[in-house]
Amino acid sequence: MTAIHFPDADYAGRIARVRAAMADQGVDALLVSVGNDLPYLTGYGAMPSERLTMGVITANDSVIVIPELEAPRVVDRGASSVHPWGETEDPIAIVAKLAGRARRVAVGAQTWSVFLVRLQQQLGGAQFVDATAVTRPLRIIKDESEIDLLRRAGSAVDAVVERLRTIKFSGRTEAQLARDVMEMTVEEGHEVATFHIVASGPNAASPHHEPGDRVIGDGDCVVVDFGGRLGAYCSDTTRTFHVGEPTAEYSEAFAALEASQSAGRAAVGPGVVAQDVDRAARQVLVDSGHAEWFIHRLGHGIGLDGHEDPYLVEGNTEVLQPGMAFSVEPGIYMPGQWGMRIEDILVCTQDGRECLNNSPRSLVIVE
Amino acid sequence: MTAIHFPDADYAGRIARVRAAMADQGVDALLVSVGNDLPYLTGYGAMPSERLTMGVITANDSVIVIPELEAPRVVDRGASSVHPWGETEDPIAIVAKLAGRARRVAVGAQTWSVFLVRLQQQLGGAQFVDATAVTRPLRIIKDESEIDLLRRAGSAVDAVVERLRTIKFSGRTEAQLARDVMEMTVEEGHEVATFHIVASGPNAASPHHEPGDRVIGDGDCVVVDFGGRLGAYCSDTTRTFHVGEPTAEYSEAFAALEASQSAGRAAVGPGVVAQDVDRAARQVLVDSGHAEWFIHRLGHGIGLDGHEDPYLVEGNTEVLQPGMAFSVEPGIYMPGQWGMRIEDILVCTQDGRECLNNSPRSLVIVE
Repeated sequence: MTAIHFPDADYAGRIARVRAAMADQGVDALLVSVGNDLPYLTGYGAMPSERLTMGVITANDSVIVIPELEAPRVVDRGASSVHPWGETEDPIAIVAKLAGRARRVAVGAQTWSVFLVRLQQQLGGAQFVDATAVTRPLRIIKDESEIDLLRRAGSAVDAVVERLRTIKFSGRTEAQLARDVMEMTVEEGHEVATFHIVASGPNAASPHHEPGDRVIGDGDCVVVDFGGRLGAYCSDTTRTFHVGEPTAEYSEAFAALEASQSAGRAAVGPGVVAQDVDRAARQVLVDSGHAEWFIHRLGHGIGLDGHEDPYLVEGNTEVLQPGMAFSVEPGIYMPGQWGMRIEDILVCTQDGRECLNNSPRSLVIVE
Repeated sequence: MTAIHFPDADYAGRIARVRAAMADQGVDALLVSVGNDLPYLTGYGAMPSERLTMGVITANDSVIVIPELEAPRVVDRGASSVHPWGETEDPIAIVAKLAGRARRVAVGAQTWSVFLVRLQQQLGGAQFVDATAVTRPLRIIKDESEIDLLRRAGSAVDAVVERLRTIKFSGRTEAQLARDVMEMTVEEGHEVATFHIVASGPNAASPHHEPGDRVIGDGDCVVVDFGGRLGAYCSDTTRTFHVGEPTAEYSEAFAALEASQSAGRAAVGPGVVAQDVDRAARQVLVDSGHAEWFIHRLGHGIGLDGHEDPYLVEGNTEVLQPGMAFSVEPGIYMPGQWGMRIEDILVCTQDGRECLNNSPRSLVIVE
């Protein structure tokens, strides 16, 4: 676990806005633990632990309940107070007392269920809802400083891709290459590399393949999908490499994939329905005969979380607005044979879109 | 996120035993997602994600509900089946159907609350309890193969400590030293380094200090607390270093700390009450006048999780049994001035204890 340092931001303003959302939805208490709602609102990120850290936000208070031995980690941002608890105290009772007689309680999406079960016992009769209902409207629209951090994170992974274009793939294992990608991700300015998929040959047909001991060889395709956090905001890009020249079948599929990804990017703009971006990219693969092998949604939102709202997926009728940030990442996966994916992060703007990843998208031929 | 590969084990036997625990406690369905209950029972660890992965164990079935694009990651262990769900399906509905008409449902401690809230809506009327109630009796007693993995992980961090004893601390930042510790942890055989505390000078008074830009200098104490996962099992050890000779005050406190940690270790054995081990170590610091600055519990259990049952803490009247594994880690923290901690992992045996960390515990004088 590497510590993430959250940037300076208008935390008082964010708390005021989340209170307004709470009032709108009749939520009396917002309880947020691990995950990014807490740092978004307070600038402090909870350690994932059996020792509860929980932000308690009500109409009048904003308090971080925290294990005594972790209290020194909190940087005072001015908008929230700190309530340390000792090793033999019950933090659930402290949270329940701070929440008062809340009748409707919103709990952070990633909060551990063991704490929710105990809170439900102590706040008997209260109705519990997912906190995303009140934090989502704030977090889904990135302000200029957030977009700037996403832009910097995007440039940093683009720099890694540039370096990958010049190195030798053949003869190395997926795991070795993944380790290099991780190191380069940090070298190019991320605080931490958070994930790294290196999937070669038939493994590339598994979109979330774990890099393993397979040795990359001549004729292999290699899907490299990776990212990290920079200034607490996430990067995420995918490029596809090929050791030596691809087959005609693979080249044809890749041309369709490029057209699909391009159509997805072109479809992004304010007022567009999220599922229509997915449809625009998917239709290209329907027309080319590859849609059967595009087995996942087109994209996911990104910000403090690597995956967050909005999702570009069939069934999501949300309307895109300026400030929303998300991936556009079609893929084609031929089971047991090969795979390919192209992924960029885009921000919806007033008049269209800004693409935060700008390394070449074409198939990269490597040795 | 680095993938953890779970070892071969008698998964069918574990599922049979957890079913017996469920029957004992009237639990009709066990639902486990992220965290280590799922891999303990099935050999597969869920990716932390908005796409739900959930093991559903009932009297007749053991099924891993998993996103379609992650299904290729599951290694068939013979004891559970796989139910992939597509991008536009509702996995909560699938889980609810598999759980049938369960009246009492146990949910994994670290399962995201957003999923629990949705499950509670779809399984209206069911009572939800913490899954630890049924998984704890199994996981708290380690078998020989688990102890062997803990032993190997312990030896690996001991090897890192040996290397730390010979390197120069002065002039380097905490963050640089932490990075070295992390690299050495992997070099010595861990799959992943999971945490690394390097706390120098006054920072050492914060038990969970995040390594930062402070440059280590002459006269500084340095608490180094780190670990990783090896064969999926966790290591965790702490040693305290000092750049040059310490003051008389520090030396005196360290002598008391060594005596306290030794008393804690000596107190471990079958039939001993958990809180009595904490008391044995604490009493030494009461007698020496340092107890006020020992601000945390004595120890935590360890296994697939870095922190798990049993906890050595005042108020825990659980009786230690052979096969339980836990840390013994007293510390003294003088706010704004200095800190110190010594930590070993021990296993309770039939006739006493085995200590899994065996690097020298005395204060290490470094340059």
